[in-house]
Amino acid sequence: MQQFQGGPMLNNRPRHILRSDQFDREFLDYLYSLVNLIRRYDKSKEGLLYLQSLLPHVRGMLYFTQPSTRTFMSFHSACSILGVKTSEIRDSATSSEKKGESIEDSLRTFSSYVDLIVMRSPEAGLCERIATLLDSTPRPVPIINAGSGPDEHPTQALLDIYTLRRSFKGNQIDGKKICMVGDLKRGRTVRSLSRLLANYHDVSITFVSPEQFRIEQDLRDCLTNKAVPFTETTDFEGAIQDADAIYMTRIQDEWDEHSESSSVDHSDFCLHYDHLDSIKEDCVIMHPLPRRDEIDPKIDADPRAKYWRQERNGMWVRVALIAILMGVDHQVMLPEL
Amino acid sequence: MQQFQGGPMLNNRPRHILRSDQFDREFLDYLYSLVNLIRRYDKSKEGLLYLQSLLPHVRGMLYFTQPSTRTFMSFHSACSILGVKTSEIRDSATSSEKKGESIEDSLRTFSSYVDLIVMRSPEAGLCERIATLLDSTPRPVPIINAGSGPDEHPTQALLDIYTLRRSFKGNQIDGKKICMVGDLKRGRTVRSLSRLLANYHDVSITFVSPEQFRIEQDLRDCLTNKAVPFTETTDFEGAIQDADAIYMTRIQDEWDEHSESSSVDHSDFCLHYDHLDSIKEDCVIMHPLPRRDEIDPKIDADPRAKYWRQERNGMWVRVALIAILMGVDHQVMLPEL
Amino acid sequence: MQQFQGGPMLNNRPRHILRSDQFDREFLDYLYSLVNLIRRYDKSKEGLLYLQSLLPHVRGMLYFTQPSTRTFMSFHSACSILGVKTSEIRDSATSSEKKGESIEDSLRTFSSYVDLIVMRSPEAGLCERIATLLDSTPRPVPIINAGSGPDEHPTQALLDIYTLRRSFKGNQIDGKKICMVGDLKRGRTVRSLSRLLANYHDVSITFVSPEQFRIEQDLRDCLTNKAVPFTETTDFEGAIQDADAIYMTRIQDEWDEHSESSSVDHSDFCLHYDHLDSIKEDCVIMHPLPRRDEIDPKIDADPRAKYWRQERNGMWVRVALIAILMGVDHQVMLPEL
Repeated sequence: MQQFQGGPMLNNRPRHILRSDQFDREFLDYLYSLVNLIRRYDKSKEGLLYLQSLLPHVRGMLYFTQPSTRTFMSFHSACSILGVKTSEIRDSATSSEKKGESIEDSLRTFSSYVDLIVMRSPEAGLCERIATLLDSTPRPVPIINAGSGPDEHPTQALLDIYTLRRSFKGNQIDGKKICMVGDLKRGRTVRSLSRLLANYHDVSITFVSPEQFRIEQDLRDCLTNKAVPFTETTDFEGAIQDADAIYMTRIQDEWDEHSESSSVDHSDFCLHYDHLDSIKEDCVIMHPLPRRDEIDPKIDADPRAKYWRQERNGMWVRVALIAILMGVDHQVMLPEL
Repeated sequence: MQQFQGGPMLNNRPRHILRSDQFDREFLDYLYSLVNLIRRYDKSKEGLLYLQSLLPHVRGMLYFTQPSTRTFMSFHSACSILGVKTSEIRDSATSSEKKGESIEDSLRTFSSYVDLIVMRSPEAGLCERIATLLDSTPRPVPIINAGSGPDEHPTQALLDIYTLRRSFKGNQIDGKKICMVGDLKRGRTVRSLSRLLANYHDVSITFVSPEQFRIEQDLRDCLTNKAVPFTETTDFEGAIQDADAIYMTRIQDEWDEHSESSSVDHSDFCLHYDHLDSIKEDCVIMHPLPRRDEIDPKIDADPRAKYWRQERNGMWVRVALIAILMGVDHQVMLPEL
Repeated sequence: MQQFQGGPMLNNRPRHILRSDQFDREFLDYLYSLVNLIRRYDKSKEGLLYLQSLLPHVRGMLYFTQPSTRTFMSFHSACSILGVKTSEIRDSATSSEKKGESIEDSLRTFSSYVDLIVMRSPEAGLCERIATLLDSTPRPVPIINAGSGPDEHPTQALLDIYTLRRSFKGNQIDGKKICMVGDLKRGRTVRSLSRLLANYHDVSITFVSPEQFRIEQDLRDCLTNKAVPFTETTDFEGAIQDADAIYMTRIQDEWDEHSESSSVDHSDFCLHYDHLDSIKEDCVIMHPLPRRDEIDPKIDADPRAKYWRQERNGMWVRVALIAILMGVDHQVMLPEL
């Protein structure tokens, strides 16, 4: 409660959640303290009913023209937790778009029924275009980017940072060594997460990947600009030994142009049960999921495996983001809990 | 409030919403005054919660075997506003129908779970058939026709009239000149709207279309019978000059039998930005949407463009219709607002 | 109310609903008295709001990778009645599974967002596998089997028994003659129902089917073991004459391997309007639906036809099951009703 009565207030309240680079350290700290407060309500029926009482009059639309059951369910639950009533699109196109309507008209139509739009689409930049359009109308509504093609997935990055923070002793990310593994060329989560980590002090990153799937030059430039030290290597076993966190990702073969994934041997970039002995005792193991064979399911039971909590954290982070956008974050008090 | 305390009451309460010709002027007046009252609740959280308290115990089914995202979302939101819990079918057929079940059995099944069915299907007359069937069972439920193939879409016509009414000075439709433009042969909204306009006095209609897409004889007969004056022309620029309202529609090429649409030049039946100077200062521009190129998006910002409000009006009209069918219209009072 | 204040309590509370053989007579009696209580709340808005107040803080997932609109709607309504907020999967696979995720990971993910999973899948045994998996995690959630391929559909069997019980004078199943008709080889409802009937005394079963669709040996063995007397015949008209209940089923041709259904004449295994004179005056006619031509729709209006009530009973039985799993069955009291 003190966080709000005398503590940090949010100075620059965002109107939309569009890109991971729109967040600064102040926002992250505020967001995560809000998440922690919100989670306390999850302990009782009364707490959950209180959260539902915050936005029961609000209607949200989940516009998912790029299917993603996981992200969809996470946002759907987040809306539900705050009492938001949702409408869903889970097809590659709406029926109106099939009749020749522009995406702009389509979303302006939906915006006339709802108070909030969460959108995921295969088109880079679409969310920002729609946010700009709606801001020019008499009835603008907030937009949350739930993944826009290959370029952005800001809420994933926010939940990753939250999971790191919560898993490290003292909730301290500053000074940590983060190891990111897998298809670093085409996975957008690694890109967004790396950029967000620049908000913390003395974080260093090791990128571990097959030669063919190294990070792209734009990410190198970005980290260099922000003075985040990083190295690149193909030596998985060497890299994970002194990592404070290992962030595993899968090969993104859905982006293959001529089945290049099949010609790459990624077996050396998988975490096996035997590796558990060689990593730090308090190392944090994460994965944005879905996984294939990058992490042996036997590892799930190890206390260092945090990817299942990471899933659930995602839901709570999204609750907090919606609360902020809709202006009820200050009501997330803990009067008697 | 006076409307209910001493004002008009609804004498012939409909059990279903099936056809646009089931409404008389008394019903229209009652419906629209109800819509106006309902909209006042939208101004505050308290108002919206009051509306939600009217039908929270009611379950509705949205049975959309002819996809229509726009109409679906509008009804879904309308249910949500009244607290109605909804189940959805948004496929071309239910799994039971694929197993050989008749549509009658399918809908009787669903009717056993819910208290209200909103249905849209490609089959003309289906809604009436189902309404008749359910009325013969021990547990009939109201049916709302949300579009039945090429023949009826009564709630669209009701929202169009509401938008006209609300946009004209003094909420007066009597005496107005309405210009309807586009594919008048195959667009059902024009047909339903024209018929409903017969409920008003001294309305005259100008139908503007390419030669190939003129209105059908049955509509001519209907208007003649009801003594509604109308003319038909291909002269778009001439017709719009003294119109009180211009109702634009798109070419309905999904009904093409041998791609006849492509052989028709409809470029002379589009509203361009330049036209704004030649139409009346208080002309009302409408479109049932989705649009293609019939209306230049630059026109959206002109105060005479009402099609986006028309969308949102549709939602409120549907709220009012559900309230009437479920018998809570009298509870839509404004105790302290 | 007495049922709970001094009456039967449930000793062995199930954590999941997986197989029809997990229920004993004590459970059935408890369940059905709970259903009867719950139905009394359906009579008023206050009663329905009370039921909704039991689990408004609970989120449930309906994971239907084998489509079944009927069962889906029934569970969806049951959740709604208790206030449970639902998320839906109604596709043959989730998008994550298409990206190579195991079904186990997929369901563990969803379980992190919700408190209850209702699942229907084409895979025999999947529900039990997932229940076992989740029980080994820090956050297990109850699973309800809503149909798992060809092997189990326990809630259908429970609702069938409830309908029999409620339709017989004195709610007495003991001593009754049940006639089951149709494709007995491949219909799982007949199998589950027959097994559950073994919980009652002196029930005898007549299986009526074309030669090619007789019951399987495992069901014969099961009934013999449990000392349930049964006969098998192809004489439909003879069998139905002294039946206390006739349970009709359709030919399950979706399981055909080489269109064997088309070579079987099932016209002698259909209930025609003329048959009504030759069956008992208080015979109970049931069908799990969907039907094709096994029952003439003209029979629907006969008071002995219970299949439409059977549908609605299914919803109430599912309400009761969810109440038991979530531990609110004791709150289903009738304080002032």
